[in-house]
Amino acid sequence: MTQIRYNDLDQTLSFRRLSEIQVPSLKKILTEERIGTCSINAGGGIQYNYAALPVDDELISLLADLAEEQQLITKYEAVLQGNRMNTGEGRMVLHHLTRGECGWTVEEEGQNKRSFYMEQFERIADFSHRVHTGKITGSGGAMFTDVVQIGIGGSDLGPRALYLAMAGAYAGKGSDRKELSPPFLRARFISNVDPDDAASVLKEIPLESTLFILVSKSGTTQETLTNRQLVINYIREHAPEIDPSRHMIAVTSQTSPLADSDDFLESFYIDDYIGGRYSSTSAVGIALLSLCFGYEECVKLLKGAHEADLLAREPVVTENASLLDALIGVFLGNVLGYRMSTVLPYSQALVRFPAHLQQLDMESNGKQVNRFGAPVAYHTGPVIFGEPGTNGQHSFYQLLHQGTEKVSLQFIGFRNNQQDIDLETEGFSSRQKLNANLAAQIVAFARGREDTNLSKNFPGRRPSSLLHAETLTPESLGALLAHFENKVMFQGFLWNINSFDQEGVQLGKVLAKQILSGTPADTLLTAYARILGV
Amino acid sequence: MTQIRYNDLDQTLSFRRLSEIQVPSLKKILTEERIGTCSINAGGGIQYNYAALPVDDELISLLADLAEEQQLITKYEAVLQGNRMNTGEGRMVLHHLTRGECGWTVEEEGQNKRSFYMEQFERIADFSHRVHTGKITGSGGAMFTDVVQIGIGGSDLGPRALYLAMAGAYAGKGSDRKELSPPFLRARFISNVDPDDAASVLKEIPLESTLFILVSKSGTTQETLTNRQLVINYIREHAPEIDPSRHMIAVTSQTSPLADSDDFLESFYIDDYIGGRYSSTSAVGIALLSLCFGYEECVKLLKGAHEADLLAREPVVTENASLLDALIGVFLGNVLGYRMSTVLPYSQALVRFPAHLQQLDMESNGKQVNRFGAPVAYHTGPVIFGEPGTNGQHSFYQLLHQGTEKVSLQFIGFRNNQQDIDLETEGFSSRQKLNANLAAQIVAFARGREDTNLSKNFPGRRPSSLLHAETLTPESLGALLAHFENKVMFQGFLWNINSFDQEGVQLGKVLAKQILSGTPADTLLTAYARILGV
Repeated sequence: MTQIRYNDLDQTLSFRRLSEIQVPSLKKILTEERIGTCSINAGGGIQYNYAALPVDDELISLLADLAEEQQLITKYEAVLQGNRMNTGEGRMVLHHLTRGECGWTVEEEGQNKRSFYMEQFERIADFSHRVHTGKITGSGGAMFTDVVQIGIGGSDLGPRALYLAMAGAYAGKGSDRKELSPPFLRARFISNVDPDDAASVLKEIPLESTLFILVSKSGTTQETLTNRQLVINYIREHAPEIDPSRHMIAVTSQTSPLADSDDFLESFYIDDYIGGRYSSTSAVGIALLSLCFGYEECVKLLKGAHEADLLAREPVVTENASLLDALIGVFLGNVLGYRMSTVLPYSQALVRFPAHLQQLDMESNGKQVNRFGAPVAYHTGPVIFGEPGTNGQHSFYQLLHQGTEKVSLQFIGFRNNQQDIDLETEGFSSRQKLNANLAAQIVAFARGREDTNLSKNFPGRRPSSLLHAETLTPESLGALLAHFENKVMFQGFLWNINSFDQEGVQLGKVLAKQILSGTPADTLLTAYARILGV
Repeated sequence: MTQIRYNDLDQTLSFRRLSEIQVPSLKKILTEERIGTCSINAGGGIQYNYAALPVDDELISLLADLAEEQQLITKYEAVLQGNRMNTGEGRMVLHHLTRGECGWTVEEEGQNKRSFYMEQFERIADFSHRVHTGKITGSGGAMFTDVVQIGIGGSDLGPRALYLAMAGAYAGKGSDRKELSPPFLRARFISNVDPDDAASVLKEIPLESTLFILVSKSGTTQETLTNRQLVINYIREHAPEIDPSRHMIAVTSQTSPLADSDDFLESFYIDDYIGGRYSSTSAVGIALLSLCFGYEECVKLLKGAHEADLLAREPVVTENASLLDALIGVFLGNVLGYRMSTVLPYSQALVRFPAHLQQLDMESNGKQVNRFGAPVAYHTGPVIFGEPGTNGQHSFYQLLHQGTEKVSLQFIGFRNNQQDIDLETEGFSSRQKLNANLAAQIVAFARGREDTNLSKNFPGRRPSSLLHAETLTPESLGALLAHFENKVMFQGFLWNINSFDQEGVQLGKVLAKQILSGTPADTLLTAYARILGV
């Protein structure tokens, strides 16, 4: 395998050349032909269209040089091969392996890691099948109807986004698409240590038929353990006939204090090589999704993600969607000064997908030191935010069109609905109206419109990309998820940072513990704690 | 009244002086004493604490000069007095008047505007009382149990945020706080033209006991009218015994095509002087909230907002929370280069409050021309995003602590829970753990922590403010809402822009219509529409 070199972005020749290039005018280069040709298969039926980005052949060729110089594909292969690419923590990075093997077998101490993840999935498939067929029931004998995921961060955002993205298509009642034989379990989520979060959920669910999934890799997450206890106390108080240990499963690591405990009906395992924000396709997400939709649907999700992972190995940048997306993002950020990026899914089912991407991207690449702990002299990860269109059009698009801030845009769209309800008026369905809005926005942002009344003037030149597919299915959803994961990984390599640790979350935890441990915290902590009633 | 002058920010003497000032070090000035003293009553029991912001007496005195020079209070009084401060559209700005009169009587063509808004509220109070007492029922005689708001943008985000903020405290089941005599109507929302949005809601509700509120000021909002028709068709197909006109009310303007229609059980009115994003305290929000919680709760919400509005008239900047917040925001943005601001409520009930503020702020101040249509040479409104704490701590806080981007922080916290469930372990309740985290974060962001391992180093110096109260009640919620509205308004005055129009939403609408009208749209639109199946 090629020797890996680690250089800061501004130490590379191709980045210096990129900084000096004449940037093409988006208004000029965006043509009908380009919309047809600037498109890459991103897996799972997803196409990545980069027509409305200010990149021409010359620029792409420079980006390809940069990819080569920063060894993006080589480094990705090193990840797949099981190198300890999470340098700071000395850990492998194996979330791709939950979806399938990409040309490499990864072992640790004789254990095949792919087999380990698959074994958990098989146990989950079996468990959820037994729940769906009534072989496992609540302690009073009731079939499980509801599931509550207790977890925070990566144990919440990704699984929640995926659940909501899939729920529409399988929400039985009134739908023609009752494709799944096992009963659909409805999911809810408890994440915040704010007890009002748990309270709102607990008051809504039928305790006798609710299964709780406790998710904490370390088994020490303060919020999650607190919420677990709160749930148990609530059950004891409001439904003393229920045995909490028969209503709760755990997803944790084998070394955690929660592992192998009789407090759980069953435990499923992950390991230290799956970071929280990359854990949606591990037991962290799959246990929930399998209970809700059946394991067969999870297989489709994993298949879509695996397809995207395989495509991300392609060295030709115009044939590798996540690689090109990553390169263009760094060009926009580090050459053109874009510090923010907004994700705009024209699909209500993706309502919480931007919140997941916010964690994925900002926690991975919001760093100011390189992989070796030396400060970098350039901007790294951008701020990510987003809401579904057309809702966003009636909210923050004003600033995107006419504000003074530079925000790059990432649109997502689907030709078809997920559910079976639509309306046709004046020759167009609601779906077509939605997509007409999406098409219109891309063009409006890129080209603008001159008006002598400057308050009605649209400068245009707002760069956007479009990820699109026929329908939001488990496959396309999996590919979409993996596309962003791989994009974020490639950007980390470009900036020469470690995208797989999160040292920035530590200090807050330490100080909160100081307050709660009763040790004489410093005066500032005490003063703030006092006005907040701690 | 003082003569009003309009000057761009960079034309003012005090801004130039501000740009040259020695900025105090946050690490040095943040003291225990400051935490006690840098606090302003913001109304409704809310305190605005600005201790962790890099402003000292000298700087505040300059900010006071700037407030004076840009005539912030005078311009606010002009708003209250009914001047046509929405210059471009030639309209008055009267959302404050929905909460109460602030020293001025506003009339138009002999009509007292306050009386007009109050009349609508009285009609709403009466209507919701009749719903709660079963005098108005579904067309089959069933008591109404559910309400669905059909609206988008300001007709959705604000009302939805307020509903969620209040729902916890009044969600009957299992709670000790069934304070309301009328039955609690549960709300859902249909906003997106994506038919999957409506489908998910329609499949969940009992049609025979659901009341729909159609909200569109103009009566021409494409998404809202399409969703109305979709709902009616769905009812006809799935419950032909139901008369849709007896299950739907309208909130619109008296001049809209929807006004005075037999298609509605009742219509409530707003007018052109209440902008969408400022309409939560008009009939747009109050009709919904009154049905859900009873009109008495709405009175408390309006009272809290009115208190904040009155306090915002105070000319001494250290006694006017929204004014100082606005001034410091402009200092951070235009002198220190902060282009983004994150809102971090440590309260799960405020889960969608940041999404409302995103519209409020970015649609109001995302402008690049001044009030007279001339380009401004400085940055205006920032990008706004946010999620509840502690969830955000496990997501994007990494970038806030250790990333390369400048993001200012606005924390919100409450001493007490809203609901009646909590857990005490090791001497602390969940609420106290939540608030210990909040206190810890403020200090961690401000002061950082040195570490020779730079990947564990926290530079600190991250500015934050804290809005806090005893409990999230209708009163404190109303004050919180008004605080941000007034802050945004003052910032608009500082930047000399019109915060009350939204010309930037027009172009997308025009182009979407071109596609949907079948007139030969241009080739770019056609090409994008084609790949999206339109």
